[in-house]
This record gives sequence, C-alpha cells and structure tokens, in this order.
Amino acid sequence: MPITVAALRETAAGERRVAITPEMAKKLRGKGLRVLLEHDAGRAAGFPDSSYAEAEFADAAGVLAQADLLACVLPPDNAVFAGLREGSVVVGQLRPYGAADRVAALAAHKLTAFSLELLPRTTRAQAMDVLSSQAAVAGYRAMLIAAEASPKFFPMLTTAAGTIRPSKVLVIGAGVAGLQAIATARRLGAQTEGYDVRPETREQVESLGAKFLELGVSAAGSGGYARELSAEERAAQQQALAEHLKSIDVIVTTAAVPGRPAPKILTAAMVDGMKPGALIVDLAAEGGGNCELTRPGERVEHGGVVILGPLNLPAGAPLHASEMYARNVFNFVELLVHDGALQPDFNDELVARSCLSHAGETRFSA
Amino acid sequence: MPITVAALRETAAGERRVAITPEMAKKLRGKGLRVLLEHDAGRAAGFPDSSYAEAEFADAAGVLAQADLLACVLPPDNAVFAGLREGSVVVGQLRPYGAADRVAALAAHKLTAFSLELLPRTTRAQAMDVLSSQAAVAGYRAMLIAAEASPKFFPMLTTAAGTIRPSKVLVIGAGVAGLQAIATARRLGAQTEGYDVRPETREQVESLGAKFLELGVSAAGSGGYARELSAEERAAQQQALAEHLKSIDVIVTTAAVPGRPAPKILTAAMVDGMKPGALIVDLAAEGGGNCELTRPGERVEHGGVVILGPLNLPAGAPLHASEMYARNVFNFVELLVHDGALQPDFNDELVARSCLSHAGETRFSA
Repeated sequence: MPITVAALRETAAGERRVAITPEMAKKLRGKGLRVLLEHDAGRAAGFPDSSYAEAEFADAAGVLAQADLLACVLPPDNAVFAGLREGSVVVGQLRPYGAADRVAALAAHKLTAFSLELLPRTTRAQAMDVLSSQAAVAGYRAMLIAAEASPKFFPMLTTAAGTIRPSKVLVIGAGVAGLQAIATARRLGAQTEGYDVRPETREQVESLGAKFLELGVSAAGSGGYARELSAEERAAQQQALAEHLKSIDVIVTTAAVPGRPAPKILTAAMVDGMKPGALIVDLAAEGGGNCELTRPGERVEHGGVVILGPLNLPAGAPLHASEMYARNVFNFVELLVHDGALQPDFNDELVARSCLSHAGETRFSA
Repeated sequence: MPITVAALRETAAGERRVAITPEMAKKLRGKGLRVLLEHDAGRAAGFPDSSYAEAEFADAAGVLAQADLLACVLPPDNAVFAGLREGSVVVGQLRPYGAADRVAALAAHKLTAFSLELLPRTTRAQAMDVLSSQAAVAGYRAMLIAAEASPKFFPMLTTAAGTIRPSKVLVIGAGVAGLQAIATARRLGAQTEGYDVRPETREQVESLGAKFLELGVSAAGSGGYARELSAEERAAQQQALAEHLKSIDVIVTTAAVPGRPAPKILTAAMVDGMKPGALIVDLAAEGGGNCELTRPGERVEHGGVVILGPLNLPAGAPLHASEMYARNVFNFVELLVHDGALQPDFNDELVARSCLSHAGETRFSA
C-alpha cells in the first residue's frame, strides 16, 4: 500500500486556502504516494474537485481513517485528531504557542506532528518556509487594502485640471511581509519609506526603490527577527516617529515577534498627531496589533484617522497563497519519506525542531 | 457685495466628495468671491472645516439663502432648489438624462443650471471635464478593487518555493477610466490587455505597456465615444471575445455611452466559459452594467466566477477626487464671472451646451 497523503476542507472562519493543490497532488503521485482529499477541499481556493486529476475524494471521516499524513493550512479542531490512526503524521501551521491543549491532544492520540512555523530560518528550510511564503501574500494584500481604503491616490496623476501628488506611504517592519508591502506601494507609484529597527534591512528597503527611515535606534536580533527594545530605546524611537508621522498618508505596520504579542509601536498620541484622512493598516492585528488603537478584525476611526486590523490576509488571495503553501508542504513531506515509507529522521534539525509530538510524547514547550 | 459661491454637504448615499476644497476656496477668494459652506461639507473628503482658511460656514438653509452660485458633486434633492433665490446659478454633475423632473424643478425656481457632464469634449473644456477627472479615479479604484478581490496575485512572485505567474488582466473600453485601469494593472505587474471597438485607441493602450486585443470589429464614433454596434458586428465581437476570455483571470469593463444604458458586452454564456476563480469588475454597473450578470452594487457568483458591480467609485477616493472635481468647477465658474458679477455668456458653446435651465426656461431635452 502506498502512503496516503490527505487534506481536509479547512474550517477556520474565512479560511479559503487548501494544503494540497492539483499541481502538488500530481507531484505527490509522481513520488508514488496516494493523495486523498475531502470533497470540495480546494473549492474556495479556486480548485474544484475536477481540477485534481491525481487525487481521490472521500468525506472527512473517510479521509481521516485512511490518512497516513494529514496536511493542513491552519490547525483543525482537536476533535479531528481523534479520527486519525495512531502513528499518523500531521503537517501544517499548527500554531503551538499558547495552545498547550492542542499539543497535548496530538501527543495523546500518538500522532507525529510537525508545525512548519517552527522550522529554523536556514537556507535549506527556505523551500518549506510557510511563514515567508504566506507573509509575502499578507504584505501584498495589506498594501492593496491600504490603497483601496485611502481617500487619496497612490500614484501621481497629471490631468488637464492640474497634478495630484503621490501619497506618502510608510511601512514599519521590513521582514518578508514588509518588503512585499513596500514593493507593492512602489509599484502603485507612492512615495514610499520603510522602517525597521534592524539596520541591516536598509539595503533591502533601498533595493526596492524606497527610502529607509532613520530614527536612530537599532535592535538587531537573532534568527532574522528583531530583539525587543528597551524602554529607553522605545521612547527615543517613538518620539522621532511621532514627529515624522505628521506628514504620512498611509502606514502599514508589519512588526511581529513569533510567539509573543506584537510590539506596540504606534501610540494613540502619535495617531492624534496624524492628518485627517490618514490610514493605518495593521498587519500584526492577529498578535494584538502594532498600534495601540487596533482592534483585530475591525475598522476604528480616531480623530479622522482610520485604523484597519485585517485578519488572516493570506486567505484573501487563496489560489496563489495555496500554491505557495502546498509547495512548502510538499518539500517538507519529501524530507519525511524514505523508500516509500514515512520515516522522519529526528537527527535532521528541520525535522527535530518542527516536531510537536511523537510516539505519545510532547516535544514542544512554548 | 461680492458673489457668494456655496456648497452643501453632499447627501447621496455613500457620497464623500465635496465640490469646493480648501485649495479652491482660496482661489475663489483670490478672485474676489465669497465662499460659504455648510458645516462639515468637506469632512468626509478629509477636509475638516478648520482646513478652510478662506471660507465662511452656515447651516444648509443659511447657505442656500445667501448663495449666488451653488456648486455640487451630485444633484441635490429637488427640495433644495426651492431654498435658492431666483436667478441663482447651480453648477455640478446634475445627471439630466432621464431626470426631467429635476430639470423642470430647476426651471420652475428660475435657476440657471449648468450640468458639467454636458460640456463638449473640446480642448478648451478639458480643464472643466468632470467626466474625465472622475473617470480617472473610477478606473484606478476599479482595478484596485479587482486586485484585492482576486484569488491570485497580480505580479509575478519569485520565492524559494518556486515562481507564481502574473495574472492575466483584460480591460474592456479604453476611455479615460479604461486607460487608468490599464495603467494600474500594469503598475501592479499584471499581464495586461486592453480592448476597445475604436481602433484609434490601440496606440494609447500600447503606450501604457499593455497589449491591444484584436477582435476584428471597429466602431469608431463621434465625440470621443464609440458608436453602438450592429447586431452582426456584436455577434462577431462576442464570439471572438468568448474564446479569448477562457484564459483571463480578471476583467474590468468600462464601456459607457452617455445617456444610454451600458452596452451588454459580456454574456452569461461567456462567463460560463471562464475559469473558476476568475473575477469581473463592472465599472458600468451604474448604467446597468457591461455584463449580463452584473447586479449594480452587489457581488454575484456564477459558476465560480465573481462579478462585482461597484457604484460611485470616485467617492471612494474622496480627497483626491474632490481636488480634481473642485478644480474643474473653479475653471467653469471663472467662465461665468465677468467684472465681479455672474454673467454667463450664452454665445460661448461651453456655457450654452451645458445649460439645463435659465430664466424659467428648460434648455435641455434628453
């Protein structure tokens, strides 16, 4: 019997992605694996069942009963784990931080679970890096949402009745999401600045044709993330930022530290100083937001400034987000399969560091 | 007493623009005119009362009682006209087609009304051309809405897990709105095509870096608009188009003939042939739509294809749309003022052709 790689229809609110695309189903079959999907698993992403030439379909219970490996985008309800056979593998964004019950449930059902957010950010892991691939979608979409919600044009416009000046856009945080947001603002013709506490991001910001905003505070950290700033450093950063924000039309914030609440960078006082009609899109809303006034999933108006806190941005471009996600999953699954069998090699740091549970044991603590 | 140029807060649903901006209030004052606004007239556009250094404020009734010239974005309720003094002037987009009651009310109250949509499309009129300035905003916003609603990325994206191909975008109708939509799709990195029945638009489409779609039907008309196609021409156009649409991810339609229902270009059968996940944004929704399936102001899903029919797109970018609109109004008002008095010269074709009513007489018939 070949290994059965399976995926369910995602059930989180607003989720439209799927962990296995037709392209990846074909590649899995090419590796001698069987692909089994829940009916309509890819439909919301733009992949009707008919587009999967290389997959079989069943209802959710049937999929779980036959799955050797279940791939998911977001963690399913813990009840789903009970439907899998002991020793089965679960791969996906399992969001283990603050979710001890989920990790315990995976271990209790003797599942071998891998949370792809925990992969080390090494060169070898890049092809499986779901945080990066989905952050690229989030950054792009956050800037589109900003452009659409702004009362101003992004590009300069020259008309018979005179010229419209381009918008001034600031992106805070120059990780993958921030850089994609900068690239999108630049494409749209806005006058674009990027800011990050890590000075080594300057070159990347500038390579996109944006200006690097200099506030005189550095917080180079490890693993590609910023370290947390001291209280003093934050005060200096905030004062310089507040002054600068008075001229800005649109801010997209993208500063996140994994497993921790999002750092509060924009205070209510800063927003008070901004122009009426200015707009903030807080991509870190899921982690509580980079702006004090952000309410996750909502639109807040504060003295003429609008603050949007959109959630699960990658789900809004589900076709391409799924394509990238499924490729990440496929590359990770390849690591686990040896001689046609699922044999995770726990000496491989990619396997070891992403593992949440194995053989009844918990291997993760937040 | 100087002439009083006035504006009310617009009251149409969703309308956020204002006919007089702070910049234009200043220019009107510079011409020796008095500017009088209703409280909060510009607030929704991003212009709080405090931003008008050169204007006075009153309530709506007070504004009407003192106005010599009332500027508006969209036509106010007919009841508003009763509040103006006889002989006063009204300037704006008065939407006279199919609105005989409005034209009659303007004449009955002995108002001199100018509908800027009726200006001839001559070089001299360009600086007052509200259709063009607002269509530019509409085209830009329609494409942003399309990019945001599409399940696919517009630009090509190269990631560690492989490449995402750019979206294929088709813009139907290459007037001001269509060209701005094309420019926006190109900025966002989509593979962009433009189509228009007027072959002379090819050069403009190509100058934006887009491909001109050739379907073998020409309908060059007069006044910068397309003529209506014959039944035979339309059939040929539709067959070629239907075949082409099978490969398209996003369509923005912009084909409008003033004073007539929007031509139906996309049939239900064509939409049936499109890919699941494809998206249509119908900018002509207000005139009934270029797609048979469009429902004005709504989102329709048809066999996996989504059709959006957004209304009043310029109101969604109210700050810049108002800036352009107010400049158009200012340039027209300049035509009407001679030696500090309102003296429309009906020998001027711009004045004569835009006039709806004067001295108790109707001067327009749809």
